[in-house]
Amino acid sequence: MKRLSLNQISTKAWSLPEAVAGCAEAGVEWIGLWRDKVAEVGLDDAVRLLKRHGIRVSSLCRGGFLTGVTPEGEPVDGVADSRKGIDEAAALGTDVLVLVVGGVADNDLAASRQRVADAVGLLAPYARERGVRLGLEPLHPMQCVDRSVLSTLAQALDIAEEHPADTVGVVVDEFHVWWDPNVEASIARAKERIVGFHVCDPLVPFTDPLLARALPGAGPVDHRKLRACVEAAGYRGPIEVEVFNAELWNTPGDEALRQVVDAYRTHVAVP
Amino acid sequence: MKRLSLNQISTKAWSLPEAVAGCAEAGVEWIGLWRDKVAEVGLDDAVRLLKRHGIRVSSLCRGGFLTGVTPEGEPVDGVADSRKGIDEAAALGTDVLVLVVGGVADNDLAASRQRVADAVGLLAPYARERGVRLGLEPLHPMQCVDRSVLSTLAQALDIAEEHPADTVGVVVDEFHVWWDPNVEASIARAKERIVGFHVCDPLVPFTDPLLARALPGAGPVDHRKLRACVEAAGYRGPIEVEVFNAELWNTPGDEALRQVVDAYRTHVAVP
Repeated sequence: MKRLSLNQISTKAWSLPEAVAGCAEAGVEWIGLWRDKVAEVGLDDAVRLLKRHGIRVSSLCRGGFLTGVTPEGEPVDGVADSRKGIDEAAALGTDVLVLVVGGVADNDLAASRQRVADAVGLLAPYARERGVRLGLEPLHPMQCVDRSVLSTLAQALDIAEEHPADTVGVVVDEFHVWWDPNVEASIARAKERIVGFHVCDPLVPFTDPLLARALPGAGPVDHRKLRACVEAAGYRGPIEVEVFNAELWNTPGDEALRQVVDAYRTHVAVP
Repeated sequence: MKRLSLNQISTKAWSLPEAVAGCAEAGVEWIGLWRDKVAEVGLDDAVRLLKRHGIRVSSLCRGGFLTGVTPEGEPVDGVADSRKGIDEAAALGTDVLVLVVGGVADNDLAASRQRVADAVGLLAPYARERGVRLGLEPLHPMQCVDRSVLSTLAQALDIAEEHPADTVGVVVDEFHVWWDPNVEASIARAKERIVGFHVCDPLVPFTDPLLARALPGAGPVDHRKLRACVEAAGYRGPIEVEVFNAELWNTPGDEALRQVVDAYRTHVAVP
């Protein structure tokens, strides 16, 4: 239980104050925050709330969209927005800003991938000065078009390795990488660059590209095996349970958190 | 136009006789057949029809489900069914049976992948004796759970290379592999093992796991670039336009075929 972190998206019905209080109540010591939920209460109040309840922030989600387009295809200055995200992460006392790098711009996949590498180069010094690590999160290839041209850990590592390990790392999210025939080799290669480990199962049958996720234990992912891989690579930080699932989102926060804790204990924790 | 093949699924509203006559009418010399559509008219009548219209079969879709489960999770003897598929391919005068290998069985991804390799070993001699090549088709990772534990060309090649190149090959379907950072390297590695090239774009926005496909030109895939890759690797066979798309499926067959031909001419054919 010491390493369990509630990724806030799993209790989407809860506001930030509710989620922080809920974690304290349930004995969950870590939380993964989303910037929109932080913005609802304001950064200063969020910091005070976390302090009052003694909850630590495992990561802030998310910067990115470095290819210059939102999932809806609107133009966006992802670098400027990610700088703000770095500042917010530093204020919230987490050293990890998760980056969702953005989908294909101008129908040009190769150029979009190059834009991401270039933008990480622009952000790295800014992050380093503020003690924040950039967590490149490869997303499932089904999100390549509109959310992330980074599709594999190997690809994320190719970019991260251009920078110091204490500045640019990767986030291992089971939902996004479980299918990858090279996932174990890539985790071993990542070593100290692993800045986050997110657990989740694909929903069976697999229907909705965004919401077809389920709590650990509901699908084919071998969570203890992947956990052993990231630990063998050297990661000893918090483990976020991050689940996009319509049913879970319609569940009251305290019950959703109970399910999160239960799934973690049963399928992820080392007995 | 000499290399264009209509994959029958793109004109789903048409029966086999309609599709064969439609191709002849439109000057399309190749067709990619589906076994359920062949079964509707019977194998012998299908052979006669093809002969009468002078249409050749680029591939037969599909054998597989070698992990032992259907997409609906029912048990199936994929090896026995694939043997039938090999016989049908031989009768139809095509040397390619496309294999969709099946999803995760018993929640065990590694064991499921091993089952596929073992089953291909069982099928290869049977196929070889009948002059049919097995075309391992990696499917998009979003179909890993329920349709194909083969997710990348590299993975398919690892299995294919255990067997003679004239017996086990791979099918390069753009929809399934366009996002893969290693797609060009894998195509170059495949060389004479490429037994089919299917063109298609992902639909933007990307919504339905099965139907989020579009005619070439509607999405981010660079068809001429990938075509150049498969040709540089040595493939000179027919090019199938294979599109799962609800709107196209609701279009009358002759109009759907017109759109297929137009998309091929505009985005795939070498001017």
